[in-house]
Amino acid sequence: MPAKTQTESIQPDARERLLDAALVLFTQRGYAASSVREICAAAGVTKPVLYYYFGSKEGLYLQLMEESYALFESLVPRLTSYAGPVRQRVIHICEGLFDISTQKLDIVRLIYSIYYGTPQGAPAYNFDRYYDRLLEIVAGLVREGIEQGEFRAGDVGDMTWAILSCLNIAIEEQLSHCTPRIGREAMTRILNLFFEGMAENEPHG
Amino acid sequence: MPAKTQTESIQPDARERLLDAALVLFTQRGYAASSVREICAAAGVTKPVLYYYFGSKEGLYLQLMEESYALFESLVPRLTSYAGPVRQRVIHICEGLFDISTQKLDIVRLIYSIYYGTPQGAPAYNFDRYYDRLLEIVAGLVREGIEQGEFRAGDVGDMTWAILSCLNIAIEEQLSHCTPRIGREAMTRILNLFFEGMAENEPHG
Repeated sequence: MPAKTQTESIQPDARERLLDAALVLFTQRGYAASSVREICAAAGVTKPVLYYYFGSKEGLYLQLMEESYALFESLVPRLTSYAGPVRQRVIHICEGLFDISTQKLDIVRLIYSIYYGTPQGAPAYNFDRYYDRLLEIVAGLVREGIEQGEFRAGDVGDMTWAILSCLNIAIEEQLSHCTPRIGREAMTRILNLFFEGMAENEPHG
Repeated sequence: MPAKTQTESIQPDARERLLDAALVLFTQRGYAASSVREICAAAGVTKPVLYYYFGSKEGLYLQLMEESYALFESLVPRLTSYAGPVRQRVIHICEGLFDISTQKLDIVRLIYSIYYGTPQGAPAYNFDRYYDRLLEIVAGLVREGIEQGEFRAGDVGDMTWAILSCLNIAIEEQLSHCTPRIGREAMTRILNLFFEGMAENEPHG
């Protein structure tokens, strides 16, 4: 049997294990404090395996971010293909994004820690693309709702931000240091409050 | 003239300058990476001055957090004493909290970086007390609004979270890496959307 080089003999799941190990270490210890040595040890591979797949720690980090965004983007067609009243479609999208966020809470946590945390020398990544894309999707729905007479004529931007504020606070509550005080059901109820209004006397209509 | 000891001869604003320097360094470089030596150099004081006022870096950090919370708490009587319809009082509180958050954006940024960031060995501080207090204040107002017939009968908790979601997203937008896309006026408009509802057909009434 011919001798294999190290990168040829690696297990087929080594790449995934490196991504998983990096996610855990970057979140728990921070990007700067996580060394290539530690990531490889946690993944059970040698350094050349990391270099083979990702080139560097920076490359591994950027790949983790790219794959997370790709996962989000891959959900968009399913989330936006839902039929029915625009209001239900908005709720469907928010629930879908809430679900994927809680399923992938570790990556959401890492994104928050990099976005809001102290600069740690991680290579630049445009996290605002998530929000920009969300704004685009929801604004399109709001515009449709207004055109179809389902929503009142109003500022599309304001309505879009109102919807995203519900999703935002529900997801952030899952990252809180205490037991989450609101979850998926509360988010949907809050969205409905926003559709129906909470004032007793509607000045419109 | 008798010789003064170092702590006796310090400038009267040394304590404030230490707090200011620590805020900048903790935010820009992180709590763990900021040494007592660097904080003192940035404040233009010697180490014994820091130890005199705060005992340690941990003590300085905790004092910074305590003073921030005390500032927030000191605003509560003014923010809640506003007269008028409950809806206007809710808006008044959110605008007041938005204003103080933008005036003290550095401390908000530090709180976010510690809360969401990688653990850096900073002593534990209960940041959720801000939110717990906010929930308490806004829930009290919502209850009053329902009792007075100004708000529809509904879940106090849901309405409270709906209001806080608007404040939350508006403040976080000021921390974003891009130019803030919404500010104080948009926050107020979004709050009004919550009060009035955006659906064309109100199923209630």
